[in-house]
Amino acid sequence: MALIVQKYGGTSVGTVERIQAVADKIGRFLSEGHQIVVVVSAMSGETNRLIGMAKQIQDDPTPREMDVLVSTGEQVTIALLSMALHKLGIDARSFTGGQVPIRTDSAFMKARIEHIDEQSMRGDLAAGRVVVVAGFQGIDPEGNITTLGRGGSDTTAVALAAALKADECQIYTDVDGVYTTDPRVVDSARRLDHITFEEMLEMASQGSKVLQIRSVEFAGKYNVPLRVLHSFQEGPGTLITVDEEVDMEKPVISGIAFTRDEAKLTLRGVPDTPGIAYKILGPIGDANIEVDMIVQNVGADGATDFTFTVHRNEMAKAKKILEQVAKDLGARDVLADDKIAKVSLVGVGMRSHAGVASRMFQSLASEGVNIEMISTSEIKISVVIAEKYLELAVRALHAAFELDKPAS
Amino acid sequence: MALIVQKYGGTSVGTVERIQAVADKIGRFLSEGHQIVVVVSAMSGETNRLIGMAKQIQDDPTPREMDVLVSTGEQVTIALLSMALHKLGIDARSFTGGQVPIRTDSAFMKARIEHIDEQSMRGDLAAGRVVVVAGFQGIDPEGNITTLGRGGSDTTAVALAAALKADECQIYTDVDGVYTTDPRVVDSARRLDHITFEEMLEMASQGSKVLQIRSVEFAGKYNVPLRVLHSFQEGPGTLITVDEEVDMEKPVISGIAFTRDEAKLTLRGVPDTPGIAYKILGPIGDANIEVDMIVQNVGADGATDFTFTVHRNEMAKAKKILEQVAKDLGARDVLADDKIAKVSLVGVGMRSHAGVASRMFQSLASEGVNIEMISTSEIKISVVIAEKYLELAVRALHAAFELDKPAS
Repeated sequence: MALIVQKYGGTSVGTVERIQAVADKIGRFLSEGHQIVVVVSAMSGETNRLIGMAKQIQDDPTPREMDVLVSTGEQVTIALLSMALHKLGIDARSFTGGQVPIRTDSAFMKARIEHIDEQSMRGDLAAGRVVVVAGFQGIDPEGNITTLGRGGSDTTAVALAAALKADECQIYTDVDGVYTTDPRVVDSARRLDHITFEEMLEMASQGSKVLQIRSVEFAGKYNVPLRVLHSFQEGPGTLITVDEEVDMEKPVISGIAFTRDEAKLTLRGVPDTPGIAYKILGPIGDANIEVDMIVQNVGADGATDFTFTVHRNEMAKAKKILEQVAKDLGARDVLADDKIAKVSLVGVGMRSHAGVASRMFQSLASEGVNIEMISTSEIKISVVIAEKYLELAVRALHAAFELDKPAS
Repeated sequence: MALIVQKYGGTSVGTVERIQAVADKIGRFLSEGHQIVVVVSAMSGETNRLIGMAKQIQDDPTPREMDVLVSTGEQVTIALLSMALHKLGIDARSFTGGQVPIRTDSAFMKARIEHIDEQSMRGDLAAGRVVVVAGFQGIDPEGNITTLGRGGSDTTAVALAAALKADECQIYTDVDGVYTTDPRVVDSARRLDHITFEEMLEMASQGSKVLQIRSVEFAGKYNVPLRVLHSFQEGPGTLITVDEEVDMEKPVISGIAFTRDEAKLTLRGVPDTPGIAYKILGPIGDANIEVDMIVQNVGADGATDFTFTVHRNEMAKAKKILEQVAKDLGARDVLADDKIAKVSLVGVGMRSHAGVASRMFQSLASEGVNIEMISTSEIKISVVIAEKYLELAVRALHAAFELDKPAS
């Protein structure tokens, strides 16, 4: 008998029929003798409907009241799912965030979980009940309703699993696991049976949308085994755990992530003096624009070219700021390019294998793909290339690192 | 400066635009220097939408989960109304039933308020805030969400007014007050400036739908001045208070209530023996059928006719039971008639004026209206007549008791 925390997202509980299908599924787990805590999101579309009404009233709705409003979405789902379980003769009890209680700070719309008192849930589990918890929400020290921000239901599930020391936290989604890369780009992309928290974090931060980064961080921090599965298809999904040293035959690369969300900005002909990076990036940071990759090359004539990437939506804003900076610094000109893509190889195996980068560059060169920027971390190599080469590059790398072949 | 509790029903807050109109209205009260506590219902249609989803899952949804579900309706409204007030620059704070807290027993879907802790609201009022409270809901001793049953928002408003010792509890509706009778039946029906709790209770229980009976009882018990007003038309509405003895010139009759909701059942030729009423009505009560009026006439031959009224929906069920009773008692036959109406004169003035009943009977006789049953209380006389005479009877009585003339 295991204690399992399961999380079903908005699409999985998007209609009354789907809620009933989720209840059926929970029934099968119970019949295998497990104890189940279920975390649910709002029915798909509901959160947007509520936000829409709020925005009709206030352009920038009061955060405290926004949380009172949107938290009703999950509250509806916990009630309906509990009813669907009762209909099957399964004892169940719903909990709002405040009823668990999931205690958070008072940062409305982006609260952080501070403590979960799991005693009440344990009592219900011991009595043979399914515990149905509203995701995404909590209660602050003054009794105000808070929400964890978008995608927060994954975090709720992981936090409950950590508090209950659950055997596994299962995240049910519309994909059947984590893939070596996006199957829409590479036909032979393969579901991974296993991936480490670190790899999953890199995959997520490099553009893979399967899980919320925050929930993966949380699972890693509390060492909660996390499994990604499809809501309505059977299958083992992908298990995410800490790195297992026994797994010596682990392939060098686990997956390839990519994103089209970035744009590249270059300041050309900047005098190469100390503090130049700060003089360029300071005004960008002051404007609340997040910078991802940064590259600086010293030129022959004592001037330098300074390049960095930002989110594509911020390119115009960043360019305007840079043009002023260029004037102040006496730089030659400012280039902006949003026709780029970032491709990242991710794998903990990189640590113990040399030559990954050169193999990557060779593979891209042989396809005629020019590399515009490079950035590396211990378990990741990212390159920026022209967007038009994205699919070509991902397919070439997927083949070069033999990701289509099952792990031995 | 007065402390006023205002309640806006589902139609008054049925759209974002109407919620904004309510916020405007509250702003005008504030500018007059009043402290305001606002109680709101779910946006019209929302409660039925939620119940509809529940009924798709369970024919008879689990009461605890039903309360978790439907309480979201009012929670949405308090958030949106608070936002609309903020938009106008008015400080406001929303409270769910549990946040006030409004403490109830654990009778889900029909909970009774046990205690309201008004300290938190007082703090916000003292700070100049509008307090926006979700109607219809509370919290039980275990922290479960409860609801007071349909129409419970009126009760919430009255209970808050009692707890806060408010100067007035204003119920905003889609009518501009309590009328001498239904203006759709009598053109000259007149809005009453003032009516007593007792009269209002009789009006409500005799078919007038303006206020929930329970909220009037509550207001009477705690002596909370209650005012019925139109949500979007200006006007003084109708004030409901305890009987003021100074008001000696009060008219004999305050209003005429009527209902088409009843049906009449008669058991003819029952042997007139002791205990006969119990033998007849016992099985009816056992079947959970509520009986309203009861009349028994002794006939010439030692047999009796026994007549009573039930809700029209229950007539068929009651008739079936009576047919078995008739067989057991050796009664002649059973008659059922749902083409009846009940008309009631209501007025505390009756207590000090003789001859009201005879004037009523005379008026009906002169119109050729036959009276089938009569029942009286200290401040009410009800008659059952054929349904086809309903409008004729109400108009005749309205004129006979000069209800179209303003109170002196």
